Amino acid sequence: MSKQEWYAGMDIGGTSVKLAFLTGEGELLKKWEIPTNRADEGRHVAKEIAASIRENLEEGAVIVGAGVGAPGFIELETGFIYHAVNIGWRDYPLREELEVELGVGVKIDNDANLAALGEKWRGAGDGSDEVLFVTLGTGVGGGIITNGEILHGASGMGGEIGHITSVFEGGAPCNCGNFGCLETVSSATGIVRLAKEALDQNRESTLHTLRSELTTKAVFDACDQGDELAKGVVQQAMTYLGIALANLSNALNPRKIVIGGGVSKAGETLLSPLREVFEHYALPRVAESAEFKIAHLGNDAGIYGAVWIAKEAREQRAGK
Amino acid sequence: MSKQEWYAGMDIGGTSVKLAFLTGEGELLKKWEIPTNRADEGRHVAKEIAASIRENLEEGAVIVGAGVGAPGFIELETGFIYHAVNIGWRDYPLREELEVELGVGVKIDNDANLAALGEKWRGAGDGSDEVLFVTLGTGVGGGIITNGEILHGASGMGGEIGHITSVFEGGAPCNCGNFGCLETVSSATGIVRLAKEALDQNRESTLHTLRSELTTKAVFDACDQGDELAKGVVQQAMTYLGIALANLSNALNPRKIVIGGGVSKAGETLLSPLREVFEHYALPRVAESAEFKIAHLGNDAGIYGAVWIAKEAREQRAGK
Repeated sequence: MSKQEWYAGMDIGGTSVKLAFLTGEGELLKKWEIPTNRADEGRHVAKEIAASIRENLEEGAVIVGAGVGAPGFIELETGFIYHAVNIGWRDYPLREELEVELGVGVKIDNDANLAALGEKWRGAGDGSDEVLFVTLGTGVGGGIITNGEILHGASGMGGEIGHITSVFEGGAPCNCGNFGCLETVSSATGIVRLAKEALDQNRESTLHTLRSELTTKAVFDACDQGDELAKGVVQQAMTYLGIALANLSNALNPRKIVIGGGVSKAGETLLSPLREVFEHYALPRVAESAEFKIAHLGNDAGIYGAVWIAKEAREQRAGK
Repeated sequence: MSKQEWYAGMDIGGTSVKLAFLTGEGELLKKWEIPTNRADEGRHVAKEIAASIRENLEEGAVIVGAGVGAPGFIELETGFIYHAVNIGWRDYPLREELEVELGVGVKIDNDANLAALGEKWRGAGDGSDEVLFVTLGTGVGGGIITNGEILHGASGMGGEIGHITSVFEGGAPCNCGNFGCLETVSSATGIVRLAKEALDQNRESTLHTLRSELTTKAVFDACDQGDELAKGVVQQAMTYLGIALANLSNALNPRKIVIGGGVSKAGETLLSPLREVFEHYALPRVAESAEFKIAHLGNDAGIYGAVWIAKEAREQRAGK
């Protein structure tokens, strides 16, 4: 009897590595995590991943390909990681190490790009070939799919939408060294900052009592309960995001705009003002073709995307 | 003796149709124009194009494919033109008509997209797979190449960068119905408008004598000669354009940013302030990878792009 063909997907973060086995159709078979071993500049990571995969593989199944989402700057052709601060890698041949350990072809890509691809394949992207994926977390990240492929750009920076300039006068400083980036106003951090600025003006709000431990969840909850200050903050953050996405969409003409990351849990409270701003600034034909969706796959999106690139690479090798 | 294989490229405009024969390597063999016959809602156009191609074809040569740049909204799969105002077409089966007349496969695309592809193939794009092409003419148009392919988007609107919102307060009305679009400040029309606004403030300038027949050329010439008002206008127009291109480039990460259209004749007078603004607003790694170029092919860019898609389609049919 021939063995079942499984794909291994993994998402390597600074704290843990998410691992999963999926079928070629994208059915999740098994999912688990191991801690990321950052000792010795992360040089044990590949070996430990491979050991865990072998340990979890069931009899009667065989790994036919593996895909990896990794942080840092990746040389896509070779699978080298130039530098990943939160793991310690410098010029680390991640792909080669994993291929030797696992004995199968391995594909690597940026985690945000793979999350976009995962949502396209098995999530909110509904298989569309034109997806604009936005993560609203500590920062604002993104991944762009055009003609069904990840847009990597000339040097792997494709989809870095968090550093679109949104505020031209008096913008807050951004980690990138500039001022007023989208990330400073529409990320979790940015929304909390806008709320604190509003509270500092001593305007009435239920949020004053939470001042010292303010979260985006508290802001969105207060917004749902009709708190005017919170409503103003959400409107402000979504206005900046809506304008940035409309301007991008006039160029990209996406079919799906998928919003992920922790902030996306606010669901319709976020989408409703966002859609309104977007429809005002996007060309009518662009707005008509674009559907906003909240990401479906949460933290697993990258694993699905990783298996997708592994599968695509295997099919290319087979000449399909 | 086998016949020489030629490609026919054409660019259909409201006034004239540009036609050319090229080799598969992109060498221009012959180039000419015929007037666009707009009578009877443009229904004679395809027949007249085909007659002109047959007439100009030399003995010993055969047309192996044809590509067409057309205005209006194009259904790419079928080659139908929904509506082209300046020719009179409505639901016109341009591809089918041309295929019947010419007896070869015909490919059709939007004129700005083909100009981008033409510059990529044989012009300022130097064969790069990541090109952001911008035309500064009466309006602002664009074409985007990612992963070596035209970015059409979900409904053929890809590259419509002229309607990115640039001015948020007090922006001029745009043809699209919105206010403050990039087109209102960085097109030829926009630059002249900005200059007239500045002249209305009675500031000193050599441009006052040209007030009634002001052109962008006059503005750029005055800028070169040190006219402060003209310098301010050029700076303003290029600031808006530089910010829009930097924001787009943070998402697209292009290798080449090619500036075409009539305004691009200003060359370094335009590129120098544009580059400076761009480098300020783009992420450092994005700015490093992007090279600004003035378009090389002028009005012929679309013809080159048209032959490129014809050639690509032929190779696909041959299973190459």
